[in-house]
Amino acid sequence: MSHDPPLAAPNSAADLEEGVSLTPKFAADGTIICVTTDAASGEVLMVAHMNAEALAKTIATGEAWYYSRSRGALWRKGETSGHTQRVVEMRVDCDQDAVLIRVEQVAGACHTGRRSCFYRSVPLGQKGGAVKLEFREERAFDPNAVYGKK
Amino acid sequence: MSHDPPLAAPNSAADLEEGVSLTPKFAADGTIICVTTDAASGEVLMVAHMNAEALAKTIATGEAWYYSRSRGALWRKGETSGHTQRVVEMRVDCDQDAVLIRVEQVAGACHTGRRSCFYRSVPLGQKGGAVKLEFREERAFDPNAVYGKK
Repeated sequence: MSHDPPLAAPNSAADLEEGVSLTPKFAADGTIICVTTDAASGEVLMVAHMNAEALAKTIATGEAWYYSRSRGALWRKGETSGHTQRVVEMRVDCDQDAVLIRVEQVAGACHTGRRSCFYRSVPLGQKGGAVKLEFREERAFDPNAVYGKK
Repeated sequence: MSHDPPLAAPNSAADLEEGVSLTPKFAADGTIICVTTDAASGEVLMVAHMNAEALAKTIATGEAWYYSRSRGALWRKGETSGHTQRVVEMRVDCDQDAVLIRVEQVAGACHTGRRSCFYRSVPLGQKGGAVKLEFREERAFDPNAVYGKK
């Protein structure tokens, strides 16, 4: 696509891991994993995907753009809710199939109203049987007020 | 598989997001994304995948198990390197297609010798053109000494 930066394919594993070129390894569906953390607290807010265009737009604008695989659409975080993410820093991992962004999050990242999508804890030590989740986070905003009632 | 816990399929979106049952949504390849952070510093160490067996073993043992999609094999973190991960807490996200584990990491998580796989920064504000990465982290161990020379 003409609006994508020329993100070349990686050459060797050494280039990929120890080189200075951004050569993202997109999955078969054209996306890469993005982990988003709160720049102030370090808390993991969400995990989503970016395609080449979302990645390029995020790099160019410093605002978080993602790609919704279920909707098949580019998506600027906060477009509907106003809960945008200003990117303070981006990192890429060793094999360049995941990026990490540290963001300034308005209100909350999760569409359920919590600041983080990871608001439930999974108890450890259980060998088989149904696993019962424990809620760990209060809502930061009312999702019905922001997105309308479902 | 008989060694897997009975992780039921989710029912409605409300159950998935606001319920107390762990009902992970595995992708078509049978895996779920796992983000791993350092329990002490909060730093994101790595992103990997778990299949149902790896998830069940991690929950049961409190040690991090993953599934390597490239090798098609279950994998206990640190099996080769000794750089194991003791899980302090596990979280699951709103739509239950990603988990987060906070771990006590021995030495470093990355096979390149760094503590985190996210050791390179992607500069922001660039509109097109090759993107030049910046190294941000020193090695915590010598990968040749741990894994043998490549």
